[in-house]
Amino acid sequence: MSGKMKAAVLNKPLDIEVKERDVPTINENEVLVKVHCIGVCGSDVHYYEHGKIGRYVVKEPIILGHELAGDVVMIGASVSHLKVGDRVAIEPGVTCGTCQYCKSGRYNLCPDVVFMATPPVDGAWADYVKIRADFAFKLPDSMSFEEGALLEPLSVGFHSMIRGEVKPSDRLFISGLGPIGLLAVQAAKLFGVTEIYASDVVPFRRQLAEELGVTAVLNPLEGDVNQQLTDDLTSENGIDVVIETSGNASAVGDTVHVVKRGGRIVLVGMPVQDEIPLNVNQLIDAELNVHGVFRYVNTYPAAIQSLSNSDLSIEKIITHKYALKDIKKAVEMARTAKDTSIKIMIYPNEENV
Amino acid sequence: MSGKMKAAVLNKPLDIEVKERDVPTINENEVLVKVHCIGVCGSDVHYYEHGKIGRYVVKEPIILGHELAGDVVMIGASVSHLKVGDRVAIEPGVTCGTCQYCKSGRYNLCPDVVFMATPPVDGAWADYVKIRADFAFKLPDSMSFEEGALLEPLSVGFHSMIRGEVKPSDRLFISGLGPIGLLAVQAAKLFGVTEIYASDVVPFRRQLAEELGVTAVLNPLEGDVNQQLTDDLTSENGIDVVIETSGNASAVGDTVHVVKRGGRIVLVGMPVQDEIPLNVNQLIDAELNVHGVFRYVNTYPAAIQSLSNSDLSIEKIITHKYALKDIKKAVEMARTAKDTSIKIMIYPNEENV
Amino acid sequence: MSGKMKAAVLNKPLDIEVKERDVPTINENEVLVKVHCIGVCGSDVHYYEHGKIGRYVVKEPIILGHELAGDVVMIGASVSHLKVGDRVAIEPGVTCGTCQYCKSGRYNLCPDVVFMATPPVDGAWADYVKIRADFAFKLPDSMSFEEGALLEPLSVGFHSMIRGEVKPSDRLFISGLGPIGLLAVQAAKLFGVTEIYASDVVPFRRQLAEELGVTAVLNPLEGDVNQQLTDDLTSENGIDVVIETSGNASAVGDTVHVVKRGGRIVLVGMPVQDEIPLNVNQLIDAELNVHGVFRYVNTYPAAIQSLSNSDLSIEKIITHKYALKDIKKAVEMARTAKDTSIKIMIYPNEENV
Amino acid sequence: MSGKMKAAVLNKPLDIEVKERDVPTINENEVLVKVHCIGVCGSDVHYYEHGKIGRYVVKEPIILGHELAGDVVMIGASVSHLKVGDRVAIEPGVTCGTCQYCKSGRYNLCPDVVFMATPPVDGAWADYVKIRADFAFKLPDSMSFEEGALLEPLSVGFHSMIRGEVKPSDRLFISGLGPIGLLAVQAAKLFGVTEIYASDVVPFRRQLAEELGVTAVLNPLEGDVNQQLTDDLTSENGIDVVIETSGNASAVGDTVHVVKRGGRIVLVGMPVQDEIPLNVNQLIDAELNVHGVFRYVNTYPAAIQSLSNSDLSIEKIITHKYALKDIKKAVEMARTAKDTSIKIMIYPNEENV
Repeated sequence: MSGKMKAAVLNKPLDIEVKERDVPTINENEVLVKVHCIGVCGSDVHYYEHGKIGRYVVKEPIILGHELAGDVVMIGASVSHLKVGDRVAIEPGVTCGTCQYCKSGRYNLCPDVVFMATPPVDGAWADYVKIRADFAFKLPDSMSFEEGALLEPLSVGFHSMIRGEVKPSDRLFISGLGPIGLLAVQAAKLFGVTEIYASDVVPFRRQLAEELGVTAVLNPLEGDVNQQLTDDLTSENGIDVVIETSGNASAVGDTVHVVKRGGRIVLVGMPVQDEIPLNVNQLIDAELNVHGVFRYVNTYPAAIQSLSNSDLSIEKIITHKYALKDIKKAVEMARTAKDTSIKIMIYPNEENV
Repeated sequence: MSGKMKAAVLNKPLDIEVKERDVPTINENEVLVKVHCIGVCGSDVHYYEHGKIGRYVVKEPIILGHELAGDVVMIGASVSHLKVGDRVAIEPGVTCGTCQYCKSGRYNLCPDVVFMATPPVDGAWADYVKIRADFAFKLPDSMSFEEGALLEPLSVGFHSMIRGEVKPSDRLFISGLGPIGLLAVQAAKLFGVTEIYASDVVPFRRQLAEELGVTAVLNPLEGDVNQQLTDDLTSENGIDVVIETSGNASAVGDTVHVVKRGGRIVLVGMPVQDEIPLNVNQLIDAELNVHGVFRYVNTYPAAIQSLSNSDLSIEKIITHKYALKDIKKAVEMARTAKDTSIKIMIYPNEENV
Repeated sequence: MSGKMKAAVLNKPLDIEVKERDVPTINENEVLVKVHCIGVCGSDVHYYEHGKIGRYVVKEPIILGHELAGDVVMIGASVSHLKVGDRVAIEPGVTCGTCQYCKSGRYNLCPDVVFMATPPVDGAWADYVKIRADFAFKLPDSMSFEEGALLEPLSVGFHSMIRGEVKPSDRLFISGLGPIGLLAVQAAKLFGVTEIYASDVVPFRRQLAEELGVTAVLNPLEGDVNQQLTDDLTSENGIDVVIETSGNASAVGDTVHVVKRGGRIVLVGMPVQDEIPLNVNQLIDAELNVHGVFRYVNTYPAAIQSLSNSDLSIEKIITHKYALKDIKKAVEMARTAKDTSIKIMIYPNEENV
Repeated sequence: MSGKMKAAVLNKPLDIEVKERDVPTINENEVLVKVHCIGVCGSDVHYYEHGKIGRYVVKEPIILGHELAGDVVMIGASVSHLKVGDRVAIEPGVTCGTCQYCKSGRYNLCPDVVFMATPPVDGAWADYVKIRADFAFKLPDSMSFEEGALLEPLSVGFHSMIRGEVKPSDRLFISGLGPIGLLAVQAAKLFGVTEIYASDVVPFRRQLAEELGVTAVLNPLEGDVNQQLTDDLTSENGIDVVIETSGNASAVGDTVHVVKRGGRIVLVGMPVQDEIPLNVNQLIDAELNVHGVFRYVNTYPAAIQSLSNSDLSIEKIITHKYALKDIKKAVEMARTAKDTSIKIMIYPNEENV
């Protein structure tokens, strides 16, 4: 290691370039990871295009990217559960460990979390990245680096199942089939769910969901989704849990109607507009539960355990692969071809992909 | 018993009169109860005034009233846990016992429930009423008939605590101080909660809440409730659980802001308008839980157990008492004096009150 | 239907014969079912051999059998969710629907349950049997009658998963591989569990477990099971949940040692002796949870939902099939060939099987 | 501060003396606390008498004591939520914050916990002690130092309520009325429980329980406790939750009989003998839950919140007070007068008490 590395730096909106940066130096409780592959997330694209998400603003040049796996190349003095050469997936948010949320098992709500690629914290579209060792998880031989990188968005699906208290016998409806929705389908399968409905307006996504084996895919622009789900498809049993990943205002509003009495709604996708009209009377009359999902907590070991022993293929959602030098092409693809690109993967340490 | 009794019958909106009706005949699994006292609920007043609530329409003359206690005067052949002379409180919704909701402990969602004073089912503003024996609960000597009748609205508060998973160390905010809100305050106290904030626009209600011993009472029309609760009153600890009982659109919308990260919102009060603008991004970002509350389930034995050993006085919310012959005065009082009447109690079997 | 039917009647221990009995007459809320197949349960064999189980004593001739599926041939006047010709599985315990347990979703604890083949209640080793309609569950076309009959013992496994709060990422150890243990393996798979260990002293049972796809099968008589599970097989991750189905005193005592800190123990198998020595200090020091399992509750719809969409074969545990006329052979086989017979199925309405 | 302080050092069994020690130096995330008062725990007495508890052996001289409150006199550079002069209670076990238990909200099971007065870790029978700042909790003005010190044993009671999922309407039986049992009574009251039974063989302890307001106190040596609790005292309602704090083998064995069907047993007191005979058939037949309790987790903020707004007096259990110089007298009192001494409090920084 020369002490220098390549990293994709976003200078300002639409201005991204590969620069030389120092390889990070690690503390005694950290590890240094050589990045094998790292995904492009919708949030990365949003920062690239708009320079901000809500209250998070890119003021200084920043390295994006936070869905990754790679090889451990250096370990801190106090690290004992990992060794150089281990293949690891990285959970990209380092929490304080001492606040009320960390201590009660909801560290995803830690107010002092340091989360990769959230300004001003650098991400990992780079040759190397460091992480506190307890957020690096050894991958079993049966899992690829790509699967390791996809653990991040899969974790959102996994956490949604936990939040929605999903049981194998539940009938699920997953609204929205972007990367999060498609991986929520896979998470549901890992939870033993056998009856999964899904919807999206984009044909390519619906086709992918069918290939992943959902029970039926709906086009929200055709017919009455609520009526189809309640009467026809589920034989009037109704939907036990809705996982809303689209963030579409109309889809969010529909959740209270599409779920059965006493059902659960899991809200994942963040709408563009803050205020969404919601039929609160229906929510009360049917005694529904609504659960917000913010990132994930304790999902990496669980998802590794589930995935490594399963024959489920989550890599099907990877539609494009690029070397780091082609980062501009990659994010432009993600920005402009939303209908046909699902998950784009970057390979920092390879010349050509 | 002569076979005839007096009952207050609503012929059509604003037209209520005391008529003679047959005393109900009971089945083997039912008991006949001589009504000692019975409350006037907001729903009763609404039927009186408008002749309907949502999909429930008064098409035939109906007896209203469903918050009651009285004496058992006759028991069916198969009833063993009650005897003539027992003082009982009545849970006014009889459920099927065989559907998925009944069998899984959520019988309040039973689609075949027969609920008193919900058209076309008669209520109990009458001398006598019958009920399936498992919905009549013996009152201990330490409880008055009035407390027995108030178990019905108290049950909504009790169920709200269960739905909101309220723990003694939680900081609560109860929005709206009508009968349901005030009894939610009392339910919270029975659950060991020691820090309870409450709000209402009506001075009389705020005063009553103070007498009931809430930590602080707020006027939503003065100052910024969210800021007061978060910064000043709770020393930045924030509110763990919001119980929304007002049904006011603005108050419902505020719930997601007033509760802390990871907090719980319990929605009880049904708004006039169906669609309420809700900040879904806040709900997701703070990973909130929202729980609708529809009536109550398994609360009568629990509330009797709590209340009978407590020195809490829930009767303080009774502001007026009437004989059955004055039913018109009673409902008009409830309809027109919303600022100063909280709970009005009817005494069918007394000439003067 | 002639009004008469054949039924296998146990007169006294070891004395069982096929007799003519009246076809049951149904109430308005019941259905009459023509039994297609019905299993021989360990409890049936125990009554056959000893004439009693604990406080339940066979004083009058009794029909045994309670694991069954068949065709609906008659429905009561108030039954609407089933029709003549429906293929159904029968949940064999009819509960009161009104006690505290029924109302709170734990009807398996109903003190007034009427359970088939539990003296003095007749079971269903007969041509026909009646059942309250809410305990008859329609089988989808994708499920065989045999699977329907096996829902009963599978339900114990299903309920064990619920009681043990089993998640897909848990590592499970199932102790004992009789019908309940083997079906608990299948239940675990339906719950998405991917790492399942199991043990039994009988080679045939271990072989069957291997065919069902458990991760590893152990012989408790060879080596140190606890050490193998903790150190070798789970790479020191340890066992999250133990499901004890053997009732063997030593196996029950081992549960607190084989499970990891904070783990859960589910006790299903009832030991011969009442008092089992248990290391309570270990239970406290490791802060374990122990959950008794008594029958099952709300499992039929859930198990049907899971099983009908799964490619899991639970019929593999059926080792023998008999016509009703050969009932003596069947129970003798169950009684004497415990090492090689797992589940024996009776076909009342077939001459030869 | 001179750099030197007094501390009570246990050299070997029965050999304890006050010595001079260095005042601890703090790290940036720690605070230094001047000890106001600190309790004598049963474990302290056990180390004093036997030099070991199970696998924990006193090999080097050790300072005992871990139930304390005092004044913050120095804070580390990164500590922001406390300041010099704050009165604090100290939670005496510092956990790693990174293991699976810490991350999932069960840090009491952290394998790397550093717990005061557990060999070889020093405790706080001394003038000063240091602690990681997130384990020091500011006391409100309404709470005394004594209450702050008692938060430690009260936490065990609090955690027992959480583990036993205790609700206000539960009927409780608390077996054993040492400090833990008596404070479990108080914890139950803080959780809103109104019907609490308790038992102990020692008259003084039973008397104290009566003063604390339990519903009824039983002497296990007189009459049949199970029968009294089930039939007479609870009018056949039975006990919902048993909290076993005595560690007496017979009392532990009784728990499965004294609790009602579907009830919960919380095991806190560790028996002298490892193996206790337990009626496992009863545990299964009644579908009981048994929950071990190991220390506590997240109880300090909760107990402070509950206690500071309550008029409950937990100080009643303090029977003796000593200056540090009289430590020998104090531990001898605890060791020899178990019938009349409940909680003994040490005041390190006072000459005379």
